Amino acid sequence: MNRVSIEPTQEGDFLFAEHEPFRLDAGGELQPVSLRYAIYGSLHSARDNVILVCHALSGSARVADWWSEMFAPGRPFDLSTHCVMGINVLGSCYGSTGPASINPKTGASYGPDFPLITIGDIVRSQARLLEYLGVKRVRNVIGGSIGGMQALEWAIDFPDRVESCTAIGATPISAMALALNHLQRLAIQSDPNWKGGRYTREASPEAGLGIARAIAMCSYKSPELFTKRYARRPNRNGEDPYRSVEGRFDVAGYLDYQRSEFNSRFDANTYITLSKAMDTFDLVHNYGSEKSAFGRIRAKVLTIGISTDWLFPPEEVRAYTARMQAAGVCAHYAEVACDHGHDAFLANVDKLSETIQANEGWFNA
Amino acid sequence: MNRVSIEPTQEGDFLFAEHEPFRLDAGGELQPVSLRYAIYGSLHSARDNVILVCHALSGSARVADWWSEMFAPGRPFDLSTHCVMGINVLGSCYGSTGPASINPKTGASYGPDFPLITIGDIVRSQARLLEYLGVKRVRNVIGGSIGGMQALEWAIDFPDRVESCTAIGATPISAMALALNHLQRLAIQSDPNWKGGRYTREASPEAGLGIARAIAMCSYKSPELFTKRYARRPNRNGEDPYRSVEGRFDVAGYLDYQRSEFNSRFDANTYITLSKAMDTFDLVHNYGSEKSAFGRIRAKVLTIGISTDWLFPPEEVRAYTARMQAAGVCAHYAEVACDHGHDAFLANVDKLSETIQANEGWFNA
Repeated sequence: MNRVSIEPTQEGDFLFAEHEPFRLDAGGELQPVSLRYAIYGSLHSARDNVILVCHALSGSARVADWWSEMFAPGRPFDLSTHCVMGINVLGSCYGSTGPASINPKTGASYGPDFPLITIGDIVRSQARLLEYLGVKRVRNVIGGSIGGMQALEWAIDFPDRVESCTAIGATPISAMALALNHLQRLAIQSDPNWKGGRYTREASPEAGLGIARAIAMCSYKSPELFTKRYARRPNRNGEDPYRSVEGRFDVAGYLDYQRSEFNSRFDANTYITLSKAMDTFDLVHNYGSEKSAFGRIRAKVLTIGISTDWLFPPEEVRAYTARMQAAGVCAHYAEVACDHGHDAFLANVDKLSETIQANEGWFNA
Repeated sequence: MNRVSIEPTQEGDFLFAEHEPFRLDAGGELQPVSLRYAIYGSLHSARDNVILVCHALSGSARVADWWSEMFAPGRPFDLSTHCVMGINVLGSCYGSTGPASINPKTGASYGPDFPLITIGDIVRSQARLLEYLGVKRVRNVIGGSIGGMQALEWAIDFPDRVESCTAIGATPISAMALALNHLQRLAIQSDPNWKGGRYTREASPEAGLGIARAIAMCSYKSPELFTKRYARRPNRNGEDPYRSVEGRFDVAGYLDYQRSEFNSRFDANTYITLSKAMDTFDLVHNYGSEKSAFGRIRAKVLTIGISTDWLFPPEEVRAYTARMQAAGVCAHYAEVACDHGHDAFLANVDKLSETIQANEGWFNA
């Protein structure tokens, strides 16, 4: 389907914690905090038609910039019915307070002094914005990857404020994903321009951030997709991988493009901050047990696994859902059959949207 | 079982191409070439009891140092019957001519001037050594990973000199593996100490080589194994990943150990050379078609897949074997059920040995 440009009806920055610091789970604090948000469609006077969209690692508040297909008539974000709200996460570099923001105490950017934040902190800051906007309860909170972690955290931390929750490709991450996140941070921190996080915009750890992104892309995509798209073909620009060390295969050319694209739009300290937030999403650690975390949930929860996702394997999402159900949550598991891997929630939105719609009846049942 | 120290009965360096250069598939040449080899057990006077063992990326000629469990009585390398021969591959840094060797033309190490080599070059150099030793035909050629590529290449390139071939976790690599190899080389080449490959021993690209190794370890091990071994436990030294950016999970501590262990024993240019040789193992490219490559094979071929190998997925090894059979090769597929991932051929030798023995009857049938 055609992508049409959809502009927010309202876009703004919400400032809070100006007088009292915003205290963080890991012990740090921030003062003040600014959150960039974007609202699509109209808020009913009862303020009861909000879909809160939580973005993933490199997303932004401008939901329609990266999830436009979800807005088509009859689809989950159909604006004739819903008011869709996106909030750039705390710690990000797309408008909200994050490592690239100015630390009012120093007049320079926070950089590596930005405190450790958790998915819980992100969600708690979002709750402040919704209070400000007078939204007492969201119809649905939805997200993929760390967006899905936020959706689950919403349902756990604010049980009375969430009617339904849609978490796509999201569970606490496995040892393999922890390993890959560690290597991504290491790649950044090994860059000579890293300088303990005190790099400048002119000399930033581009090589390291690029490698981090490329490692991540390998985990976001599936081996099946890479084989189908690139196989063992030489790079499309005519390089010959069989004749020189420099000659690349096509998949290497793709990754190199991804590296440079990402460098033009992301910040290394931000990457580290959000990758750590992903690591520390752990219901056992944060609530004593999964059961006591799940026991708080009042929302109906739709979890979605992606058949070829090896970062958040569908069988783990399914097992997680079963444990939710066992804890009394009204939860339902659905699967997107798609060879895109984890990235399917962004790369195959038609299929995702279909899967959500096919299961929406369940929310209303 | 206990590992016992098994010493070679003969160890040496074979020098050739002193007068005529050894010409390489990609167009380069080397002169002279030296190959480090190790022989275990006794060569029958008919010289017909040789098992040629091809090592993987970071292995050496000293087979019993890394595959000792295979030598136990009754096992595949039982020295009462077999004479086991290991040859350090061309391009390695464990005794044979490689990037870390002295280039006689310059008096300095080859470094980045070392020419591109292929699995075919490696095998052709090994053939020269076997000729020198008077071994006209090997009873079995065996290896895992790029060792398995060599075993297959032997069967294809020297059909009359190979009685049987055992290739473990080895096919031309997939797009995902090409992607990961590219990133590993990139990590090395992005290290400030890399200096275009002209680094010194005192200031070598350790950070980059360490990251390369750690990426590789993630692909050698399975997510299942990481979950079983490390789960989401904090690093065993007491660090708290929930309180600081530096605090690691256990799997990160493991990878950091692997990085430093590898740096103490491997060379960056060598890593790039062998990783490229792995990339360019491609029967379609090298022989026009898989069928014409397979059509050359006269040996009985045992292929072994590892159930949890995601770098060389068992279903790909199985499909590859089926295509061999379709091309008329007397080939047989067996699978090691083991949660170690690709690394199982080194990490679970008991299971591997069992699988080989259970299928040895087939070689003799």
